[in-house]
Amino acid sequence: MQKIIIIGSGNVAFHLSKRLQNAAHFDLIGYHSPHGLNKSFDFYPTCYLTDQDVFNAIDCIFIVAVNDDQVAVAAKNLPASKLVVHTSGSLPWQTLPHSMRRGVLYPLQTFSKNRAVQFDQIPIFVETEFPEDLPLLKSLALELSPIQYESTFALRQHLHVAAVFSCNFVNHCYAIAQQLCQEQALPFEILHPLIEETAEKIKTLNPLQAQTGPAIRHDQKTMDRHLSLIDDPQWQLIYKEMSASIQRSQCKD
Amino acid sequence: MQKIIIIGSGNVAFHLSKRLQNAAHFDLIGYHSPHGLNKSFDFYPTCYLTDQDVFNAIDCIFIVAVNDDQVAVAAKNLPASKLVVHTSGSLPWQTLPHSMRRGVLYPLQTFSKNRAVQFDQIPIFVETEFPEDLPLLKSLALELSPIQYESTFALRQHLHVAAVFSCNFVNHCYAIAQQLCQEQALPFEILHPLIEETAEKIKTLNPLQAQTGPAIRHDQKTMDRHLSLIDDPQWQLIYKEMSASIQRSQCKD
Repeated sequence: MQKIIIIGSGNVAFHLSKRLQNAAHFDLIGYHSPHGLNKSFDFYPTCYLTDQDVFNAIDCIFIVAVNDDQVAVAAKNLPASKLVVHTSGSLPWQTLPHSMRRGVLYPLQTFSKNRAVQFDQIPIFVETEFPEDLPLLKSLALELSPIQYESTFALRQHLHVAAVFSCNFVNHCYAIAQQLCQEQALPFEILHPLIEETAEKIKTLNPLQAQTGPAIRHDQKTMDRHLSLIDDPQWQLIYKEMSASIQRSQCKD
Repeated sequence: MQKIIIIGSGNVAFHLSKRLQNAAHFDLIGYHSPHGLNKSFDFYPTCYLTDQDVFNAIDCIFIVAVNDDQVAVAAKNLPASKLVVHTSGSLPWQTLPHSMRRGVLYPLQTFSKNRAVQFDQIPIFVETEFPEDLPLLKSLALELSPIQYESTFALRQHLHVAAVFSCNFVNHCYAIAQQLCQEQALPFEILHPLIEETAEKIKTLNPLQAQTGPAIRHDQKTMDRHLSLIDDPQWQLIYKEMSASIQRSQCKD
């Protein structure tokens, strides 16, 4: 059975390890991390591999799941001529060392260690330097999810921008709302049903059609009052820019 | 049984009517709208009431569920001395005519006609001009949801700002992401699992802790590349402001 080694001990490495230890057609033999052994990986049968273990590994695929700025360094000493893929949304496969058969295995999801991951629903984007490595990487991706796309660096970058808006910026809106609640001694939980419905709605409605609120109604009075209630100048700016963008988006609908 | 009449035919009026036609301790006798009869209200036993019907109604509570800028006008000709409440998050009860016993019944949710509403989970905020009307309004609110709060105009306004961030601005982030996908001929559905997980996550993690992405990692290279991929100057500005605000939020954590 084709062996796999995971490099990294962060959120992505953790969840890939958990998932791939049960792979049907691949054998996850362990993980290695530049930060050393990580307690959260204490689940059978994944085990920690030393530098020497990794260097001596033969016939392995390496999945480098580390922060973007660590990819090149973490892959530097991996054996030459092996299939090595990183999991980043925003790096080309060229970030990996030239001596390897390079590729990308990008799962489009936000990973936190203490949250279970529904891999079956996650789109996986695959790329390989050599076309002949693609079938193997696709069969590995299939152990994660049936939803997979052959991508390009350009496509993945655009996708990553869309992911930043729909995940990172959305989460920051939640963070601002949470702090606004906190200032009024209101529990943030009060907003959970609204947050859930907003996320659910766009599965059946185009988000342009789903837009509600004072901006889309051009209710300037309410917007002005809201701005006077926001103390933080940066949040005021976000309020103004978002509202202007919402109003402009009507013309595109 | 205490009778109710709903004024309005928009999303909120529609869902309140649907819910209250099954109320245990109130009798919804119908709705009236400045826009006339509305086809979507074609469900038993709610029926359309004319101006004359409304004017002749005795012993009714009136729920004015219309756009903020229509509240005063829509309530103008309602019978004096009756309990009249509006459903707005951002108007004081003083918006209603002076001759009435005024109040507010604000359900904190985003309503769309073709989406079922889980009323049981929605927080309802109630306010009355006269303390003696509060028990009646609270028992009406109880027909909608067990989660209810006595509020004040100030509290409701702050809450509304938080709702704008966690619903309206979040939805606009989805809309931008959807358009970014469209430009690359990618189906927006590709982002659904990410959107769902982002909304789910904050039920167990504080959103400040749940933050991921290039901004929180101070990954300026990726952020610069993302900005170069966004054509729209206003979206670029949103990207910059959101990223700066995410980075600053670390200090508050």
